[in-house]
Amino acid sequence: MGVTSTVLDVTTMRSRLDRLRRHAADAGVTTTVVSPGSDLRYLTGVAGSSFERLTALVVPSDPAVAPVFVSPALEYAGLGHVPLGDLGVEVRTWVDGEDPYALALGGVPGGRVAVSDMTPALHLLQLRDAGAVDQQLAGPVLRELRMRKDEAELAELRAAGAAIDRVHARVGEWLRAGRTEAEVAADIAAAIVEEGHAAAEFVIVGSGPNGASPHHSVSDRVIEQGDVVVVDIGGPLPSGYNSDSTRTYAVGAPREPDVATAYAALQAAQRASVASVRPGVTCQDVDRAGRDVLAAAGLAEHFIHRTGHGIGLDVHEEPYIVAGNELPLEAGMTFSIEPGVYLSGRWGARIEDIVAVTVHGVERLNTRPTDLAVL
Amino acid sequence: MGVTSTVLDVTTMRSRLDRLRRHAADAGVTTTVVSPGSDLRYLTGVAGSSFERLTALVVPSDPAVAPVFVSPALEYAGLGHVPLGDLGVEVRTWVDGEDPYALALGGVPGGRVAVSDMTPALHLLQLRDAGAVDQQLAGPVLRELRMRKDEAELAELRAAGAAIDRVHARVGEWLRAGRTEAEVAADIAAAIVEEGHAAAEFVIVGSGPNGASPHHSVSDRVIEQGDVVVVDIGGPLPSGYNSDSTRTYAVGAPREPDVATAYAALQAAQRASVASVRPGVTCQDVDRAGRDVLAAAGLAEHFIHRTGHGIGLDVHEEPYIVAGNELPLEAGMTFSIEPGVYLSGRWGARIEDIVAVTVHGVERLNTRPTDLAVL
Repeated sequence: MGVTSTVLDVTTMRSRLDRLRRHAADAGVTTTVVSPGSDLRYLTGVAGSSFERLTALVVPSDPAVAPVFVSPALEYAGLGHVPLGDLGVEVRTWVDGEDPYALALGGVPGGRVAVSDMTPALHLLQLRDAGAVDQQLAGPVLRELRMRKDEAELAELRAAGAAIDRVHARVGEWLRAGRTEAEVAADIAAAIVEEGHAAAEFVIVGSGPNGASPHHSVSDRVIEQGDVVVVDIGGPLPSGYNSDSTRTYAVGAPREPDVATAYAALQAAQRASVASVRPGVTCQDVDRAGRDVLAAAGLAEHFIHRTGHGIGLDVHEEPYIVAGNELPLEAGMTFSIEPGVYLSGRWGARIEDIVAVTVHGVERLNTRPTDLAVL
Repeated sequence: MGVTSTVLDVTTMRSRLDRLRRHAADAGVTTTVVSPGSDLRYLTGVAGSSFERLTALVVPSDPAVAPVFVSPALEYAGLGHVPLGDLGVEVRTWVDGEDPYALALGGVPGGRVAVSDMTPALHLLQLRDAGAVDQQLAGPVLRELRMRKDEAELAELRAAGAAIDRVHARVGEWLRAGRTEAEVAADIAAAIVEEGHAAAEFVIVGSGPNGASPHHSVSDRVIEQGDVVVVDIGGPLPSGYNSDSTRTYAVGAPREPDVATAYAALQAAQRASVASVRPGVTCQDVDRAGRDVLAAAGLAEHFIHRTGHGIGLDVHEEPYIVAGNELPLEAGMTFSIEPGVYLSGRWGARIEDIVAVTVHGVERLNTRPTDLAVL
């Protein structure tokens, strides 16, 4: 357990670090503390989660003051190839018994400290006790950087989309009456890894009435002939960039009489949201485009969640495609479009593609047909 | 993605909640906020990690004030079977657009708020901005509860130990010259799941010189005849309780000339630490017992980490078996004993068992032979 890393080239890392400093200074932040997670991976390639021992990148907004990378000595041993020195970052390692919080803040300008959103309370409150009293979230600054993907990031997200599409193409091998959701999910999870993901981060198989619960995961329910089944799957590539795609399947002719009509409306709604995407359109416009189609079909009350979420190094990140979000889209933004209809106690359906905003419009990163797939 | 749950009986949950309130009151804490993670799982059975939407259990220390469980409505739909009502917990669900922080704190006594250690900054700082200004870590209180396992927890940890022992018994099927560490690790990961774990949380295969780096994970290094190979593996059972066991293997007769002597000292050191365990002995005594054996063999400088860590719902938790920790052992504590020797650039070895402190001594939860396993 601990941190690992993927290789980022020094030019990319330097550019991201410079942008972080500029955005942080503009936000009135003196120093930004970034702990392990996708923010740190974005800036340095260092992957992993926070544990009880402090690892952090400490970035003064003043470009004349060197950033500091604090790491347990044992974990840093595995990070020797990360070119922190070439970036002008000062590495400070520590061993059990030393105070990593004093080490992290030593020589760093006091003032307003922004802390990355996923930093655990364990570290946040000990940084506070070591002197970093004036704390705010670094999320608003970091999201400005991470929300607009560069070409290398788009290439990774395209590859992730293609990989999960290959899994959906094979769902018919495993999904059939008489098997449990959990059995089908185990086969899908194995295929997610076989098709190039580092892990099967999530596998939702919601059959029959379970499909009507958008946050259902899997269960021991035995799939029956005539079931409609929601399959929502994804995970990270070795680079850390994620896939996330949903298709809805039917095991033979659907049992419920309203499936064909409602599904057609859902498909039209999902297409309408995708078609609405281009620079300048707001996030809530994209949500509205599909929601209006479902409302016209009398299904408004059965679409009970937002239309989508940004995706990149996190499965859920900015921008959120939701009513009230007036953020205008820009080229390089990537997010899901995943309307659903949920008929409580009977059946549900969802269609989810990841899309990228292009200079003139939209690129779908999932390209499987969106029809109800009757197996 | 979201929260799930395992079933805890109401009596256990009520007892844990009562103990939390008493310990918190003793520590001068008015209210404890517990976010998703193993602390919340311990108290309620609700499993999962923190995401961007706030889920939290808010426990006033005053038993006359009802605890509050705040949850996004969509996620709570999957938690209907958790008997929060029977515990006197008031459930408050929220939807996008509402303020979950005000909801969490509404009607809760002001004062000193303890926040569980793994709560993300995202939630901690928004709770602060909603009025919970006087914050401290809940870890010291929660660890008092979680450090002493009850009989049901010991049964789960025994089952986890037996499951990972079955995987070690099969390592010879996969570990051989000509294969990469990563290939071997993939087979081991599959077996960890086959033998009853919910996931293969970590798989370390450190061959030859990689074994000399205690935090090495896996690589594409091809295993060679004569290599010594450290295999450190584990994961959670469906209940959330973890396994963690290391054995060291040799692919044919070891190439390095000092393996037999150094390994014999390591094995004696590990036995000495295990044999030292009983109520009243301190954590640092257990560390010292093995470390002295290695020092007598001239290997002190090659044992470069603490002897062990507590284990339960977290793979790493209290108590830590490390110099300076004067905590006396008590029956019900469970932790690893895992000394190692690391000969930089050449080879390394580690032996790790989980043990439980009993009323009179020690119970090993891993029972595979600790000899160097020559394949």
